[in-house]
Amino acid sequence: MKILTLNCWSHSIKYHLFSWDDRALLAMGTVERVGLGSSFISQQIPGRELFCMGTEYNDHQSALALIIATLTDPQQGVIADRGEISAVSHRVAHGGSQFRHSLRIDDQVLDSIRNLQHLAPFHSVPNIAGIEAAMFHLPAIPHVAVFDTAFHLSMPGCAYIYPLPYEWYEKHGVRRYGFHGPSHLYLSRRAAVLLDKPVYTCNLITVHLDRGVSLCAIRNGFSMDTSMGMTPLEGTVMETRCGDIDPGIQFYIMQKMNLSACELEQILNNKSGIFGITGRHMERQHFLKAALDGDSRCRLALDIETYRIRKYIGSYLAIVGPLDAIVITTGSGVPEWPVREMMLDGLDCFGIQLDRERNRTTGSKREEVEISATDSRIRVFVIPTNEELVLAEDAAAIHSGDCHDHLHYDYSFACGDFVPSVSLGIGTGLPL
Amino acid sequence: MKILTLNCWSHSIKYHLFSWDDRALLAMGTVERVGLGSSFISQQIPGRELFCMGTEYNDHQSALALIIATLTDPQQGVIADRGEISAVSHRVAHGGSQFRHSLRIDDQVLDSIRNLQHLAPFHSVPNIAGIEAAMFHLPAIPHVAVFDTAFHLSMPGCAYIYPLPYEWYEKHGVRRYGFHGPSHLYLSRRAAVLLDKPVYTCNLITVHLDRGVSLCAIRNGFSMDTSMGMTPLEGTVMETRCGDIDPGIQFYIMQKMNLSACELEQILNNKSGIFGITGRHMERQHFLKAALDGDSRCRLALDIETYRIRKYIGSYLAIVGPLDAIVITTGSGVPEWPVREMMLDGLDCFGIQLDRERNRTTGSKREEVEISATDSRIRVFVIPTNEELVLAEDAAAIHSGDCHDHLHYDYSFACGDFVPSVSLGIGTGLPL
Repeated sequence: MKILTLNCWSHSIKYHLFSWDDRALLAMGTVERVGLGSSFISQQIPGRELFCMGTEYNDHQSALALIIATLTDPQQGVIADRGEISAVSHRVAHGGSQFRHSLRIDDQVLDSIRNLQHLAPFHSVPNIAGIEAAMFHLPAIPHVAVFDTAFHLSMPGCAYIYPLPYEWYEKHGVRRYGFHGPSHLYLSRRAAVLLDKPVYTCNLITVHLDRGVSLCAIRNGFSMDTSMGMTPLEGTVMETRCGDIDPGIQFYIMQKMNLSACELEQILNNKSGIFGITGRHMERQHFLKAALDGDSRCRLALDIETYRIRKYIGSYLAIVGPLDAIVITTGSGVPEWPVREMMLDGLDCFGIQLDRERNRTTGSKREEVEISATDSRIRVFVIPTNEELVLAEDAAAIHSGDCHDHLHYDYSFACGDFVPSVSLGIGTGLPL
Repeated sequence: MKILTLNCWSHSIKYHLFSWDDRALLAMGTVERVGLGSSFISQQIPGRELFCMGTEYNDHQSALALIIATLTDPQQGVIADRGEISAVSHRVAHGGSQFRHSLRIDDQVLDSIRNLQHLAPFHSVPNIAGIEAAMFHLPAIPHVAVFDTAFHLSMPGCAYIYPLPYEWYEKHGVRRYGFHGPSHLYLSRRAAVLLDKPVYTCNLITVHLDRGVSLCAIRNGFSMDTSMGMTPLEGTVMETRCGDIDPGIQFYIMQKMNLSACELEQILNNKSGIFGITGRHMERQHFLKAALDGDSRCRLALDIETYRIRKYIGSYLAIVGPLDAIVITTGSGVPEWPVREMMLDGLDCFGIQLDRERNRTTGSKREEVEISATDSRIRVFVIPTNEELVLAEDAAAIHSGDCHDHLHYDYSFACGDFVPSVSLGIGTGLPL
């Protein structure tokens, strides 16, 4: 059974093709600059050289056609015919309160996803465009939606209700939903394996650290709280998103700078965070290097990012119960050791002891590494996240008629004998 | 030396008259419903019955005239003539980055306060009206400004810089300032006395719990972080203010409900928080009673309030260093024991052990009580806050030519032999 996973953005699409029966990644790639001109596709196949090709396409439908053509290309491809694809799994940012687990997309489901798109328009609109495009090109097979929000629907009311007029929650769905669900699910299940405990007895704080960043407090395997909110704008500092700010700032700055709500929303999403503090748009690795080289604004951004993550860890320590482990993703291939070292600095009094040397030498994105000291009461793991495995396995299960609830499902990667292989671990960071 | 302290709101003024040489409170009172019709003054003098009188006045100037007339009234008053007042101390909500300590108000200072009023318009505008009115009626004596923000100017950049475009900080003063400075200062100095340690060796988390709520992380006597931000809207849940929310909600709800920024700002300030969740405006004591009696929305509001305070405590534990004590105000006369019990619930693993019985029987606003168990590593104190003492002492010092920096000043209440007397402790909660 071959499963295609899709992660669609406004101007890019990431894809992975799995041969599910042997859990092998056949190909992965991205299409960049959809609709922006100078667009290109790059595809990686284990054991072959990276394939890149510049071409023009204006929308997700033509980009999807190119992906299928590349996968089935006699020279560059890995399958002979699109008919070999058994199912497509779509990452969908927002499932509101109604989508508690992954499911097959039919007209009714697609309508519901459309009805929820106002809750995360930057993400849901391209998600929907990707679903429509993929259903157009691959109409005969199941399309499965895997929601970022579903993992977090176990949160209690005190974590998801905002101190706002209650009717906004009842009538307009204003509540915390959280995102990066597949990543937090994957990390928690892998951590349980490393802890050698059933996940339903594990208390964890998982840190998804990428261009988008979110933390999750996991009690007995279930999400109890998470840093992203109704939208992905809340939480800790991100590459271009502000995260938590004083709500009063928005009114002040709109008036002071004569900005419309729409203009301000763009700034908070695309010109804030690390970019806002440093004033320069930089890849994480360049920003980290500049910070360590003494650039004062980059250093300030690093201080703020790690300070705010540390505060989140403290806040989750206070609500999650006796903690087994902190789990930090690595996935972008960037040496993130300074971030980990600084965010865990001063937490010794909670029983969190870092093995600094181990942390500093942990840079590969393919290994699961324990970076806590041997006598650390709370263990700290670095785990390359792998959201696509969740996407692929949910689609495989649904294709096999097993419409499972992911919270109680025995994922193959949650078993002791699962080996996170090199081929399955490449470049899986999804930058919500 | 007699010192009048003033705390001016849009529609009310609180005042206290001290005889500073013997540290005695001569009178305290409030004028309510300024400019709203059906206005009245109430004045309390130790040992006498409460005096109340309905009268009409339209602005702060006429309300101030009434206060002075009442203080000098042959029957109801405590002084023969306004000439007995040596200085007036004004609580000023916002001092920006420039006012690092209390100081005498001259034209230049008043202009600077006016220039900062856009940072906290709900508070600064009536503050300024009160200063102008008091200087009109008492022109010959020193008027002193005591800033809510000054205590927090010791925060490091990682705590006060927001992940927003940096030029907003440079050009428009967008940063965390924090509020309730006199209260956090008073609480920390009193806690040091109870701990029998110099305050400059004390790590504390202070919780100002009133209609407005703020927490402060204090390291070695200095504010390192606080929950309120550029404005008093950020932070934990308040009576009608929302505190921390997803910044994306504002854009969503403005569009969904067709609200202007100004309308939304009013709702987040005046119709959110406990009021928003419960849908009913209630005094804290009624809301707490309803929650304990099983009203589900009041219980939800209590859960959210205490959950969010607990998360703040956790986040400050992670950044403040080894903690000596948590200090919680009491001041409104409301039995707040359920809030304290719930906000400290589950923190045993940090060495915070509550003496539940002691906590439940601590209700008076006049006593300083330790509510932690004898074997609690971190101590927990309930301390009636007394911001007016800070206001009065700053004014007395400045009147005596001692233009002190409050961060290094030996306040009289910070000495071991200071007894927080009944007369000095009545009804001092300032509801910012």
